[in-house]
Amino acid sequence: MAPAEACPEEFVAFAEELAEAARGITRRYFRTPVNVDTKADASPVTVADRETEARLRAAIAARFPAHGVVGEEHGTERREAEYVWVLDPIDGTKAFITGNPLFGTLIALTRAGRPILGLIDMAILGERWVGAAGRPTEHADAAGRRPARTRPCSRLDAAVLQATHPDMFQGADALAFARLAGAVRLTRFGGDCFSYAQLASGFVDVVCEACLQPYDFMALLPVIEGAGGAASDWQGRPLGLDSDGHMVAAGDPALLASARGLLKSS
Amino acid sequence: MAPAEACPEEFVAFAEELAEAARGITRRYFRTPVNVDTKADASPVTVADRETEARLRAAIAARFPAHGVVGEEHGTERREAEYVWVLDPIDGTKAFITGNPLFGTLIALTRAGRPILGLIDMAILGERWVGAAGRPTEHADAAGRRPARTRPCSRLDAAVLQATHPDMFQGADALAFARLAGAVRLTRFGGDCFSYAQLASGFVDVVCEACLQPYDFMALLPVIEGAGGAASDWQGRPLGLDSDGHMVAAGDPALLASARGLLKSS
Repeated sequence: MAPAEACPEEFVAFAEELAEAARGITRRYFRTPVNVDTKADASPVTVADRETEARLRAAIAARFPAHGVVGEEHGTERREAEYVWVLDPIDGTKAFITGNPLFGTLIALTRAGRPILGLIDMAILGERWVGAAGRPTEHADAAGRRPARTRPCSRLDAAVLQATHPDMFQGADALAFARLAGAVRLTRFGGDCFSYAQLASGFVDVVCEACLQPYDFMALLPVIEGAGGAASDWQGRPLGLDSDGHMVAAGDPALLASARGLLKSS
Repeated sequence: MAPAEACPEEFVAFAEELAEAARGITRRYFRTPVNVDTKADASPVTVADRETEARLRAAIAARFPAHGVVGEEHGTERREAEYVWVLDPIDGTKAFITGNPLFGTLIALTRAGRPILGLIDMAILGERWVGAAGRPTEHADAAGRRPARTRPCSRLDAAVLQATHPDMFQGADALAFARLAGAVRLTRFGGDCFSYAQLASGFVDVVCEACLQPYDFMALLPVIEGAGGAASDWQGRPLGLDSDGHMVAAGDPALLASARGLLKSS
């Protein structure tokens, strides 16, 4: 892959402003009684998801009116723009509605379809991972900011694998995931976007998921790559707005091909 | 069940001192490089588990030398004593070693084999649930202390079910769990002791697990019961030091029998 052009600092700073705004809203609603609606894809949504995304979209429209936006809750605007923001206000709504702090806000910026900036904000944990083309991924919390780095792990039998839920794998996907889970040292479920933050900080080696939408993964890619890891779909293609929803990420790029080998064989 | 004698305040205050001491140790080791050993049951253990339990045992021996202790890492002493402390220094060691804050310290006190005090301390979240016979369960965090209450939910098809990992159910247990999971609205994996804290605070309705040891569940019982919930083994027997490792808890006691009905039919 050609080296990406550095992401302008202005966009990074703005994405952090968006994350702060999101944090204020999700924190306010967390563990309060909120109605849970069921969307067409059977996933839950709350006023916290909708209000957060509306707030982020309004901020983007005010600051960068020519930019496009793709959001989980309020759809797509100007997808053909050079710069497109990709938003998941609450990744892990099922965690959110069960009082579990492992949900996050995902904010990505793509240029010409390629993610140049990604941010995972864990509102309740007070932790943030920021990845931007041209610089190392940063992990920020109350104690400060520091680079996040994946850990070396070139063998599947030494690897920790994580995924959100076994039910995201159906049919042939379930068999493929079972092959991978059977080859690793430890498999853990739960976490949504937090799994990728754990990978970026060197605590998890492989994350493998299916049924993802672009707003679920676009923000993860700069975080993973800026921390030294690699990700693709299960066939080895780069992930993008038209991906098929399958994703595999490895902290050690040498592990990605081995993981994909098990996912593809059938 | 006959109403339990109230737990003396002296023991509650001491258990909170133990939790503070544990918090200091586990926070210090969290997300640092620690060697992970594998125990006879294939579960992982670290210096953080061992040091925390040793510290709690030393404090108990100094203050209540006649009391017994059952701990995950350092075995059993004076199990025949009137009062026995039951300790799991890090419940969720797999979370701990993957940089995931959803591990907890579990501290229980039994009198004549019956738990009269239980404490779930989430060191990184800064949250604690304290259950003691004769008073309501309390939830404490940086913002203060307040009673924790389960929520009403008398129908399985409206219930949120949680368990730590699908692999804790093997053979007939897996079929039983699948019947229960097929009957509820939503199933979530992950969490270890935190699942029961979510239940005690009214965000999860049923927690169903297997392969538990007394140090995994004794501290949970006063938390659950003091919050309005109920728990038993899968056959409906009270949980105790000689239980078979199967546990089911419901926030709404009316739901417990329905859940057990599905677990028992085969």
